[in-house]
Amino acid sequence: MSELSLLLVVDLVGIAVFAASGATAGVAKRLDLFGVVFVGFMAALGGGILRDVFVNVQPFAFVDWRYAAVAVVTSAATFWLHPTVSRLHWTVLVLDAAGLGLFTVTGTLKALDAGIPPVGACIIGMITGIGGGLIRDLLTGEIPTVLRREIYAVAGLLGCASVAALDALHMQRPVSIALAAVLVFVLRMIALRRNWSAPTAT
Amino acid sequence: MSELSLLLVVDLVGIAVFAASGATAGVAKRLDLFGVVFVGFMAALGGGILRDVFVNVQPFAFVDWRYAAVAVVTSAATFWLHPTVSRLHWTVLVLDAAGLGLFTVTGTLKALDAGIPPVGACIIGMITGIGGGLIRDLLTGEIPTVLRREIYAVAGLLGCASVAALDALHMQRPVSIALAAVLVFVLRMIALRRNWSAPTAT
Amino acid sequence: MSELSLLLVVDLVGIAVFAASGATAGVAKRLDLFGVVFVGFMAALGGGILRDVFVNVQPFAFVDWRYAAVAVVTSAATFWLHPTVSRLHWTVLVLDAAGLGLFTVTGTLKALDAGIPPVGACIIGMITGIGGGLIRDLLTGEIPTVLRREIYAVAGLLGCASVAALDALHMQRPVSIALAAVLVFVLRMIALRRNWSAPTAT
Repeated sequence: MSELSLLLVVDLVGIAVFAASGATAGVAKRLDLFGVVFVGFMAALGGGILRDVFVNVQPFAFVDWRYAAVAVVTSAATFWLHPTVSRLHWTVLVLDAAGLGLFTVTGTLKALDAGIPPVGACIIGMITGIGGGLIRDLLTGEIPTVLRREIYAVAGLLGCASVAALDALHMQRPVSIALAAVLVFVLRMIALRRNWSAPTAT
Repeated sequence: MSELSLLLVVDLVGIAVFAASGATAGVAKRLDLFGVVFVGFMAALGGGILRDVFVNVQPFAFVDWRYAAVAVVTSAATFWLHPTVSRLHWTVLVLDAAGLGLFTVTGTLKALDAGIPPVGACIIGMITGIGGGLIRDLLTGEIPTVLRREIYAVAGLLGCASVAALDALHMQRPVSIALAAVLVFVLRMIALRRNWSAPTAT
Repeated sequence: MSELSLLLVVDLVGIAVFAASGATAGVAKRLDLFGVVFVGFMAALGGGILRDVFVNVQPFAFVDWRYAAVAVVTSAATFWLHPTVSRLHWTVLVLDAAGLGLFTVTGTLKALDAGIPPVGACIIGMITGIGGGLIRDLLTGEIPTVLRREIYAVAGLLGCASVAALDALHMQRPVSIALAAVLVFVLRMIALRRNWSAPTAT
């Protein structure tokens, strides 16, 4: 498998996992089939849509039908199979961490390539990773989870900074993507295992 | 009346109806006059703004003052006349179905014309139709109605697919717009009459 | 100090105040440190991001790192110092009125310069001023304050209309910005002192 098609497959797996998380939230809120698929679609692709709006191009989610197809099919499958999906709780968390790592890192590079300076590119990269979950929570009437607990966005942000630094040092893209995405994944897994949280104000 | 000005008039009627729905929701939430007009404006023009952001042009709602004027005047009128508007419940539903048909179908064509492939164009068309109601519900603290019940977005989506197919077959635009918009309208009316809903998960 | 750097300083002060308002809302909702900083960032820069998305350029908040830096540092400081910030309630309201004046007026001019006609430019200017607060309230699960009470957006809108009119009369930019921003500031201050509100429907 070529590098490019490997990246595509990993990308689509991440989208499927994010779609499943959105669809599960929709089922929990008793949305109908359309609502479940819509929330799943937005959870999967909302972060990338925000990224593309900010770098000022037509969102990839609308340009390449495979992204929409994976999001819709996964969401619809979750609608019917949600008890099974719930039982896969830990598997979903692990794949979600992988998706977070990939989306934040590739989002940062896409922003850099569009001429956004490093600080802004890192913020856009982070929004690529957390934006879908934010939209999912807003659509289902919740204060976004990512703002309340656990090390999630911060792990993504460290990956963004790493890939921006490695890119400035002219490291080859596949290597820098892999290193930074693995960093995010490992941080997120450790945070989950040890119940790390960001502090709240006293 | 020329085709173009007929389309404009129908467009503005659709915007007025969507504005009335938004303003009514704002009145119900005890918003002040500004809040009622703002929610009405967003309910009327939010879908088109999202469409234009996604196809990457300056939103038409800001470029042509007539759209804003119709939305603002209708919303303000609803603020003062809302008991009358409420009594027109069925009229509003019928006009709303017409607006849904028009906005989804023309939104799809605008996306196609901007170079978005058919699948993405249909999704953008659907968001053009339901986006205003989504934003209205988010601004008034509700889980969006369109995600919870009734055949609404799905009717719109069938219209999007129809117009994309007819356009690929090189049917003349006024004919394909009319056919697809009427399809959406009829589906939506039947769904309302028969209380059709999408399924919810068990 | 040159005109340009004076404008930058005033801009950054406005951003700091809006960030403090967002961070304070985040602390009140028991968000964690990341959540507080994210809401502060969006409260400070969300209006400008919407403005830039609507005029169809890459958002300035991502292009110039100083904006993000001021928003993040102020939000983090508010996280630790929020009892002090709360005691500065009246100071924050005064600075917020100044920020509202500046953001609405410069937002209008930016939209005009991007080719948006006056009516649309005024609406974009107003959204520049109130957008951050809208996003702050949506992220923290509240119906936006700006839609419910007090003269806030309307003061901003009058400033937008003034600066658009003065600009059409070819008044020099620094003068028209100052006049219109002071108008907004004074209106907002009077409204606060006298508890002016927009009407609600009966």
